Amino acid sequence: MRRRRDDEEPEKTPLVKEIPPKARDLSEWYQAVCYKAQLVSLAPVRGCVVLRPYGFALWERLQATLDGRFKATGHENAYFPLLIPERLLSREAEHVEGFAPEVAWVTQGGGETLTERLAIRPTSEVVIGTMYAEWLQSYRDLPILINQWANVVRWEKRTRPFLRTLEFLWQEGHTAHATEREAADEVQQMLGIYADVAEDVVAVPVYAGEKSQSERFAGATHTFSIEALMPDGRALQAATSHELGQNFARAYNITFSAEDQTLQHAWTTSWGMSWRMIGAMIMVHGDDRGLRIPPRMAPYEAVIVPISGTDGADVANAARTLLATLRDAGIRAKLDDRMALRPGAKFADWDIRGVPLRIEIGAKDLRDGVVTFVRRDREKGEEGAKTVCPSDDVPARIPELMDDIQRSLYKQARTFLIEHTIATQDRAEFYRLCRERAGMIEIAWCERPECEAHVKVETSATTRVLRVRHGGDTVCTACGEPAVGRAYFAQSY
Amino acid sequence: MRRRRDDEEPEKTPLVKEIPPKARDLSEWYQAVCYKAQLVSLAPVRGCVVLRPYGFALWERLQATLDGRFKATGHENAYFPLLIPERLLSREAEHVEGFAPEVAWVTQGGGETLTERLAIRPTSEVVIGTMYAEWLQSYRDLPILINQWANVVRWEKRTRPFLRTLEFLWQEGHTAHATEREAADEVQQMLGIYADVAEDVVAVPVYAGEKSQSERFAGATHTFSIEALMPDGRALQAATSHELGQNFARAYNITFSAEDQTLQHAWTTSWGMSWRMIGAMIMVHGDDRGLRIPPRMAPYEAVIVPISGTDGADVANAARTLLATLRDAGIRAKLDDRMALRPGAKFADWDIRGVPLRIEIGAKDLRDGVVTFVRRDREKGEEGAKTVCPSDDVPARIPELMDDIQRSLYKQARTFLIEHTIATQDRAEFYRLCRERAGMIEIAWCERPECEAHVKVETSATTRVLRVRHGGDTVCTACGEPAVGRAYFAQSY
Repeated sequence: MRRRRDDEEPEKTPLVKEIPPKARDLSEWYQAVCYKAQLVSLAPVRGCVVLRPYGFALWERLQATLDGRFKATGHENAYFPLLIPERLLSREAEHVEGFAPEVAWVTQGGGETLTERLAIRPTSEVVIGTMYAEWLQSYRDLPILINQWANVVRWEKRTRPFLRTLEFLWQEGHTAHATEREAADEVQQMLGIYADVAEDVVAVPVYAGEKSQSERFAGATHTFSIEALMPDGRALQAATSHELGQNFARAYNITFSAEDQTLQHAWTTSWGMSWRMIGAMIMVHGDDRGLRIPPRMAPYEAVIVPISGTDGADVANAARTLLATLRDAGIRAKLDDRMALRPGAKFADWDIRGVPLRIEIGAKDLRDGVVTFVRRDREKGEEGAKTVCPSDDVPARIPELMDDIQRSLYKQARTFLIEHTIATQDRAEFYRLCRERAGMIEIAWCERPECEAHVKVETSATTRVLRVRHGGDTVCTACGEPAVGRAYFAQSY
Repeated sequence: MRRRRDDEEPEKTPLVKEIPPKARDLSEWYQAVCYKAQLVSLAPVRGCVVLRPYGFALWERLQATLDGRFKATGHENAYFPLLIPERLLSREAEHVEGFAPEVAWVTQGGGETLTERLAIRPTSEVVIGTMYAEWLQSYRDLPILINQWANVVRWEKRTRPFLRTLEFLWQEGHTAHATEREAADEVQQMLGIYADVAEDVVAVPVYAGEKSQSERFAGATHTFSIEALMPDGRALQAATSHELGQNFARAYNITFSAEDQTLQHAWTTSWGMSWRMIGAMIMVHGDDRGLRIPPRMAPYEAVIVPISGTDGADVANAARTLLATLRDAGIRAKLDDRMALRPGAKFADWDIRGVPLRIEIGAKDLRDGVVTFVRRDREKGEEGAKTVCPSDDVPARIPELMDDIQRSLYKQARTFLIEHTIATQDRAEFYRLCRERAGMIEIAWCERPECEAHVKVETSATTRVLRVRHGGDTVCTACGEPAVGRAYFAQSY
């Protein structure tokens, strides 16, 4: 993608006539699917997208599942301001150094030039830490467990729907604890929730683990992430969970009087997942026909398409009755009763949008007391892709079918991840596999930043997450220095 | 409040020791309650607040009820970008003139000065209109019914929690229609939903109606609003719904090919409610002890306070069992089991936070098989403020009690509104009532901007909403020119 200057006219959303084959060019396929399924449009400001209703419905599904899990583990939502005064941002040295190059600055307001620049939040540790310092008095106030749903802005050069945009939607959790142990437990708990949501809801298998020193969040003492593998062999970091130690507590005076009356610095954490997770879902599960949405993420689990001949009215009535029955049964169903479109066009439309199940009702079906089920997760003509179901059984059959589709999509993705996780002890092979984007390449590793930097220059790959050392690991596969642990290397998004 | 300069240190949230009497100084009382109930803190950036968990829980209640009603009337959510290029903002002349003085501008990003300033959205007609122009092709695509939950920034001088802040949270609906009639119906439908939510959920009675020309939204052909009356006799505009005619469609090329093949401009609308509604709720219902939250808005409908003597363990167990029972019954209940606080301190705490019902359980209650109910909406010692309820009846009694409290709060507010709605035909009395903030002052009115401007200069009052003309209205009470309709005048927030 060509780099634009800010004064050029913003790009228009490309008109997608046909979705190109996924295997030919993943990037081209990905963008075509995002536009054609009406998930996003390019916004009239550089590097931003509009999340269209169908795309936003995916985000609402992800939000609901995350929000429920956050609340079940004792977190509350709150809202902190968008704008951060420059002096405040500058207090944690590593943090500001990490984020300053990506900041968008407000310098004028109310017709006047401001005397201090205001950063649009790239993340909210700074402003939330400042508030915690004000709120926190005693050990009895701890832990503070707060999450925020927010938009953030990071001035990126190259952008791509969901994966990297100037503005994106996410949640950021920020907690403060009395001890390092509690903070560490919190970070692991949230990492576990992210892995669980990725695998059980989005059906995207991930590796969860600690990041290397070079890949750590600016200001953190330990960063953990979940990493998914895309079909082109690139890894995608889908969520992060950070131990911030007492770094932010020192920079922003987050202190409390402990049970023994001493004044202590709190131990803080932060953790976030963004709409990027939707990008991973699209790439992992989509096929040449478009999206395939795992049922638990699907805005509509089933779409009813009436196939009307001369008995149009009866078929239309039966379709409406079925819609009401399914909705009463708590199934997210949609009836496509558009008059201007033929059934074939509707099939293609819902295939692109990845609805897990299509329910066809024709005149003959009606007479036979059945409907036809078409599963989106199977190829056309594949066994089980198309089945007939007695009308009365439909509400009971759909939940089990949804579970089956959910499992089946996860299993396909899991098989791909396993098949593309390659352990090697051979240095030349390691470099070649990294260069070729063969997947998650696992080696015994020295954990030295210099070694990682060298691999990156040579192959564009970096560590994704660290792994526990095996008994036989004596030397680093990448450089020959003593091995300290193991690591997955991959090129990444 | 003294005006700050941007380079001063931001204010700290004032420490509130005691809530002053509401009748003495509403503004002082209001801010004290907002801070003391932990709804908000002052943010470290001028003119912004942090919405703390308890305040955010109120927002979540309001969001849920609005979002449900929007979806039930066929609207979908979407998300549009925060930043708007200056050239785009400038296309609708009246609109830009209305909003330009309040805009915060991003002029630097990624370490470089931008060649075009980017406005932080003060509202999103411009960017959403641009997208509708891209999406809309045929009459079959209409209506487009989209809502957005978003933060917006308006560079205000004087700020106050919920009522006016530089950044605030709101929803903004934006729709496009084939005909003026449909657009007008949409605007009335949404106005009806706002009035319904204000009255039935927030228990704040409102007058709904059209705004005068001077009070119209920048770029609209008709603006409608709901107006509530505060205890100091000032009106508060709690939501607006606008017919935009074809103004934005012309400025942003929102066109479609009609059924007769002609190219036509769409008729658009926009409508919004913000967290300001929470400010109205606080002012209308609060008392000298703090908040009084209408049950349908309450994060917790009931708080259980165990009163432990020597039988502490039994009482604590009974309280936990009751909590589980209530939650199973779908009641939003909270158990205050803090060890460090005495019951009296807990009572005061939940009084400040306005939980509709307090449930006390002591050792004697336990032996008698009862609990004590204390209603927050009644004065201490007032009849019915404190009642005894058999333990087994608690889950069944609470919903009816909640309905009663909801009705009672609404009735009190409604009585106040009626008593402070004063019709007059006397010019001198009209000016005096406006000056004295006597409430909603209703007169026969000429509907001339010059007349409204004169009243404003003389009394600080403006029209709130227009009313239908009565038979006997011949001259404008304010100026003596011919009457065209009637209007409510009031000073406003």
